Amino acid sequence: MNDLLSTAATTELFVKMGLMNWDTNISRTNKLLDELGDDLLQNSVAPNRNTGVWLVGHLAAVHDAMLPVLGLGERLYPQLEQSFIKSNDASGYTLPQLREYWNKVNTTLRERMATLQPEEWFQRHTLVSEEDFAKEPHRNKLNLLINRTGHISYHVGQLVFLKPKQ
Amino acid sequence: MNDLLSTAATTELFVKMGLMNWDTNISRTNKLLDELGDDLLQNSVAPNRNTGVWLVGHLAAVHDAMLPVLGLGERLYPQLEQSFIKSNDASGYTLPQLREYWNKVNTTLRERMATLQPEEWFQRHTLVSEEDFAKEPHRNKLNLLINRTGHISYHVGQLVFLKPKQ
Repeated sequence: MNDLLSTAATTELFVKMGLMNWDTNISRTNKLLDELGDDLLQNSVAPNRNTGVWLVGHLAAVHDAMLPVLGLGERLYPQLEQSFIKSNDASGYTLPQLREYWNKVNTTLRERMATLQPEEWFQRHTLVSEEDFAKEPHRNKLNLLINRTGHISYHVGQLVFLKPKQ
Repeated sequence: MNDLLSTAATTELFVKMGLMNWDTNISRTNKLLDELGDDLLQNSVAPNRNTGVWLVGHLAAVHDAMLPVLGLGERLYPQLEQSFIKSNDASGYTLPQLREYWNKVNTTLRERMATLQPEEWFQRHTLVSEEDFAKEPHRNKLNLLINRTGHISYHVGQLVFLKPKQ
């Protein structure tokens, strides 16, 4: 690192790294979802495991919940929580509908994340108390973004099993 | 973020976030590998997909290769590359042996990563050229760590399928 970099420039670089990794993972997921198509996504990723449909709803629900956690507004689709976070039941939802939610949630989240100033990313997110944050300042909004980026990877590693084996 | 934080303190916080996420993922993987035990790890994570054994070797090989990429010395087990990065053939390796490599690689890598000064994490890693790095300073050692943390998540999402379904 250039020793002349200011705190502001350092902060901006780190936020950029976090957002670029997020974007890369969203793009990778979208590419895979397009490639799989609606038919393959109906299948379970492994015997007796979640279906592709449920995983799309799950990722949409988890990303939707990031809006309030990051202080970026209310969830768009709070009804997803019951089926896709608290349980594993995608009945009542169709894949085209869930794809729409997934895209809308990600677009909205990304637009609103872009409005955060670099230093705001180092503020507390709402899943950590003020007391805990005072002791553990790494539990900030950027750390939540990095964690949720890992959550995408975790499930993409499962969704790839829907691809026909060569 | 406290406006009084210096560049050094900011940099240190970023690095701490990266290393804590890494440690969390390594711990999570170790806990899962212990829980699965050697018998379940012999199985394929899904029909016609990699076995748990191969994935342990793969993760060990990928982490071993981080040593030279981060400028922290030569790989400990370069022979793993052929079986666990260039191909999917774990024959010739036993699980106790691969567990030993996995633990040794992670311990060594973590010890050496601890010797890096915070600002060194923002330097170029060896997979990016000096020219590219000048244009894309986010492609630094810390970014590689974050990427490889995501790589762990990706495969842990697969290894969990070895757990007997409740």
